[in-house]
Amino acid sequence: MANSYRPLAVSLGDPAGIGPEVVGKCWDHRDRFGLPPFVAIGDPRSLAAVWDGPLATVDDPREVDSAFDVGLPILSIASVEADLPGHPTVAGAHCSLDALELAVGLARSGSASAVVTGPVSKQQLYGIGFSHPGQTEFVAERCGVSPGNVAMMLAGPTLRTVPVTTHLPLGHVAAALSPSLIEARGRAALRGLQRNFGISDPRLAVAGLNPHAGEGGALGREEIELIIPAIEALRTEGWRVTGPHPADTMFHAGARAQYDAALCMYHDQALIPLKALHFEEGVNITLGLPIVRTAPDHGTAFDIAGQDLADPRAMAAAIRLAAESALHRATLSV
Amino acid sequence: MANSYRPLAVSLGDPAGIGPEVVGKCWDHRDRFGLPPFVAIGDPRSLAAVWDGPLATVDDPREVDSAFDVGLPILSIASVEADLPGHPTVAGAHCSLDALELAVGLARSGSASAVVTGPVSKQQLYGIGFSHPGQTEFVAERCGVSPGNVAMMLAGPTLRTVPVTTHLPLGHVAAALSPSLIEARGRAALRGLQRNFGISDPRLAVAGLNPHAGEGGALGREEIELIIPAIEALRTEGWRVTGPHPADTMFHAGARAQYDAALCMYHDQALIPLKALHFEEGVNITLGLPIVRTAPDHGTAFDIAGQDLADPRAMAAAIRLAAESALHRATLSV
Repeated sequence: MANSYRPLAVSLGDPAGIGPEVVGKCWDHRDRFGLPPFVAIGDPRSLAAVWDGPLATVDDPREVDSAFDVGLPILSIASVEADLPGHPTVAGAHCSLDALELAVGLARSGSASAVVTGPVSKQQLYGIGFSHPGQTEFVAERCGVSPGNVAMMLAGPTLRTVPVTTHLPLGHVAAALSPSLIEARGRAALRGLQRNFGISDPRLAVAGLNPHAGEGGALGREEIELIIPAIEALRTEGWRVTGPHPADTMFHAGARAQYDAALCMYHDQALIPLKALHFEEGVNITLGLPIVRTAPDHGTAFDIAGQDLADPRAMAAAIRLAAESALHRATLSV
Repeated sequence: MANSYRPLAVSLGDPAGIGPEVVGKCWDHRDRFGLPPFVAIGDPRSLAAVWDGPLATVDDPREVDSAFDVGLPILSIASVEADLPGHPTVAGAHCSLDALELAVGLARSGSASAVVTGPVSKQQLYGIGFSHPGQTEFVAERCGVSPGNVAMMLAGPTLRTVPVTTHLPLGHVAAALSPSLIEARGRAALRGLQRNFGISDPRLAVAGLNPHAGEGGALGREEIELIIPAIEALRTEGWRVTGPHPADTMFHAGARAQYDAALCMYHDQALIPLKALHFEEGVNITLGLPIVRTAPDHGTAFDIAGQDLADPRAMAAAIRLAAESALHRATLSV
């Protein structure tokens, strides 16, 4: 029966990874996790191989709301072959890409309220000609947004971080930073806090690059030359921004209570504290898109796929955050 | 009354900092914190200014054991003027250095079982001609050990980290690493776990430098060229060493259970997880010395000195760890 509810679209990711298993477990524990109706997108055989629950095949997202109590709704992407858990194939990579494409399309058209992406294998995707660094850039392109204008936020229950640079050798980070890049990422973080988290006057804490935030220039000059100018530019726009903070003293509980997100200069500065504190429930949310997109902050974990070992909490947190963000956006647009 | 007990020597640090207050509070709560008899070394007026408990002036460490129940034993270093809390002076810097010197001397001579150093102001010390980067290097020199042969370990209840490099701009870290330096620091960490923690066959986890530990060379080659050779050299000696591990996934509870210490490539890689998890009770222990030396992992905090706001848990943890390490060493030498 059709109604106006718009479900969340959850792509299963690589059929040989742990994506299908964690999505199935999320449906099992939908009440405990507090999850609204969502629809899985992928090969039903990848779910059946690792999960005993009931599937409810749907053809249209409008069927999901009523089907969700009966079984896990699934929009079927038939792969040319059924992958074995832990054994990725070219066919599986194609299937994961098709599922991602359909999920994004549903969100862009308004048929889904948000996209949650299961883990894919970049190595497998590169093998079939995928030319984006990751799913984030693919989604950005499909939404008509330059990858330079989106930002990745890692969100856990008591900490959110946004890295200014991501997959660079550590020795290249300093040269990749500029006031305009730091400012752009900071602005994306602040707007993202407003749009996705409903925080009207968000507080951003900016980390220094060097030990002790450079100690007034004695341990590096990037704070003085690059980071402080970016902070001042954001403050001039009226944003509440503090820093640069010594990175080692900004992630304990008392410090975290002073800000809504931390802007970090490099990958591990953002991810070490997030995963040290919230390893099982970290969510990746892409800021700067016209749609809501989240993902659990873990990979395909081929080594444990199909053994009932995968922890569904990060996927559950990603689904829940996607639902909350979609709600905040709907409220904003009223 | 003299006996054979050898107390811990605790220098108060800068008299205008929070050192005197946290040492006084440690005596107040000596039972709850589980602290053995220790003697404060510094200006009694700096304690009286911020703490209401009883002082028991002693002239000889052998008096500490019996005095400890009566009051906080103190070996008096008279400063030429009494500092006000939060207002460091040249005289206070001299006093903090004299206290450090005496504490180290007592440990070297065997009159004290270990040294715990209160926080000093490096800026103030530099003003009176102190030429060491910090107290660690000063203690090393007084012990006749080259600063290059000591290593700093940060220890909390569930994590110990050892940084290979410390106070360098982040952009200089890669150039400062070498297989021999990583190997030397790793060996110091392993020996330190044996000598100070009584772990006979310690496990060391070595972090990568780059995101994802370099991803096989795609995100940096330091793992392949510098870190793996050091790991292999240590393994050849029979040590249990793993890595290089991606730094972001090695500090959650499940990962921490797999090793006794993490060898980190730079300051914030070691200190971000330590302080995110154990901000109130981090201890700095110097490895590679003939004596035991620990310190609370915080500074003078002049901004809160004298306001009864200072948290004594890190100082208590430093005193407790010093006592435990001294005990392990005494057992080893039997």
